[in-house]
Parts: sequence; structure tokens; C-alpha cells
Amino acid sequence: MNEIAALFRRLSHGVYVIGVADGERRSAFTAAWVTQASFDPLLIVVSVNPQNASYDILRAGRAFTVNVLEHGQTELARRFGTSSSRDHDKLAGVSWHAGGNGAPVLDDAPAYFECEVQDRHPAGDHELVVGGVVGGRLLDPDAAPMLYAETGDMDGSSALFG
Amino acid sequence: MNEIAALFRRLSHGVYVIGVADGERRSAFTAAWVTQASFDPLLIVVSVNPQNASYDILRAGRAFTVNVLEHGQTELARRFGTSSSRDHDKLAGVSWHAGGNGAPVLDDAPAYFECEVQDRHPAGDHELVVGGVVGGRLLDPDAAPMLYAETGDMDGSSALFG
Repeated sequence: MNEIAALFRRLSHGVYVIGVADGERRSAFTAAWVTQASFDPLLIVVSVNPQNASYDILRAGRAFTVNVLEHGQTELARRFGTSSSRDHDKLAGVSWHAGGNGAPVLDDAPAYFECEVQDRHPAGDHELVVGGVVGGRLLDPDAAPMLYAETGDMDGSSALFG
Repeated sequence: MNEIAALFRRLSHGVYVIGVADGERRSAFTAAWVTQASFDPLLIVVSVNPQNASYDILRAGRAFTVNVLEHGQTELARRFGTSSSRDHDKLAGVSWHAGGNGAPVLDDAPAYFECEVQDRHPAGDHELVVGGVVGGRLLDPDAAPMLYAETGDMDGSSALFG
């Protein structure tokens, strides 16, 4: 891993599956660049790659979920990784249901948030999507959230630091 | 801790001291809502409370550092917490030097980033400050970054979830 990649690993991120819905069109993708942004109102920011196959659905439907992955759910992180094919239905074979806002909630996620898009801001090769939190549940208080640092270079991102 | 506060603890955040400078005016404050936002260019987003005493310096000087705290540096996190007095020079008694952009680099931080403000976006009771990364160093590759979850309710934030 190069020096810049190693430096950026010192920013702590979790690992999440972002579910998106536009009516009956649904998809999901793995993301790490997620943070709370406000207490009142409760806001979460996700930095999204507009090249992502799910981005059109997110932009059109303005509804998303943030599914928290727990330690060890590497297979889910990998399945919803952006390297998956655009044509592949990533939700097939995974247990999920539609949340209150229509976006997919993974049944195996220990916690999730339901959000509505409030703002979008360009940020380099990504876009900051600001979501107002309209719902969510903590299903397993004992689950330890997965940390991005523990995924190694699963997503091949170290190459993106040049 | 109430249910919403407990749910939001499942978003993983690190703990950082954000150093700011406007010429010779310098200050620093503790923040957890920090994420990478882009690979090219390299961008970091910090959600900042505009009520923070350091905010005016950040806005005027447009230069900041992100000092990564490591596991156990609770005293530094507390010292630069926002509950500190507005009039108190929080940098006094701490070992630091001016980074390449003039903003304070804590000598005990295992890693730091130097940033220039590129954009600011309102986000509820906070503001998203987007910084272009212009420098930084990983000084101690073996240090484990402090996680916000390990600070308990040191900042009293659980009350902010109502």
C-alpha cells in the first residue's frame, strides 16, 4: 500500500450498505464514507460515486437506507461493492424488506437508518448526499460495527490514491 | 443513553483535533464527524458547529489540519472539546507547531492532514466544510486510531438526541 493510502486509512470509517429506491426500482451499494452531520435535524451525509449503478435510482427516488454492517459481514460488503456488474441484481439472494421509505433494509443488518435526500453537493469525483433521518432501528445492540480498516484492500481502493 | 443516541453510535467515527489558523490567530477543537469524500482530488469533509469558538478563524483563514488521535489520547480529546471556554487558549500547554498551511499540528498526533477549505454547505445545526488535502504525514503507523464509540458520553452528546 502506498504512503498516501496508508495515511488515509487513519481516518476511521464504518462499512455500510446503502439501499436506494425509486418506486419499484431498488438497488444497494457498499459505502464507507458516511458520517453524522447534524443533531437538529438529524442528518447523515454519504459521499457517493455518481458512476455508481445505483446513483440514478438514488437521485430519482430521493429515498435511501444506511444499513450498518457488523464485524464479520465481509460477504455482504463484497456483494454490494461497486465492482459488481451494473446488470447484476445485487439484492437477489439476500434477505431484505422495504423500509418505511421504500428503500431496502437488509434483514441481517444489526442497525439501519431510513433517510430522505435533502441536499446534494458535488465533491470532487464524488457527491455529498445529505439525508434527513426519518426512521431507523437498532436491532442488535451487542453487534460490533464493521470498520473499514478491517476490510484490508478488499475494494482495491489503495490503487486510487495513485 | 436514549434509543436514538444508541442507534447513532452505530455510525463509526474517529476522534480528531481540527486545528485552524487565520494568520497568527490559531485554535483547535475536537471533532468526530469527519470523512473522506473524494479520491481525485483528495477531499475530506468535516461537519462543524458554527457556534464553535474556532469557527470564525476557520472561515476567515480557510486553512485547517485534521490531527488523528490515537487510542488512549482521551485527555487531548477532552481538552479541545467544545465545552471548553471561549476565552481559554486551548493550545497553551500542548506541544504543537504550525503546519505548511499555518494551522496547528499536534506533535503527539500519530497522523495529520493539512487542508484548504474548498466549499462550505449548511447542514442543519452544523456546516459541512470540504477541505482539499494539500499535505499530511503518517508519523506512527502502529498507532491505533481512537474511535468515537470508545469515548462513552464524554462530550455529553447523548442529551442532544432529545
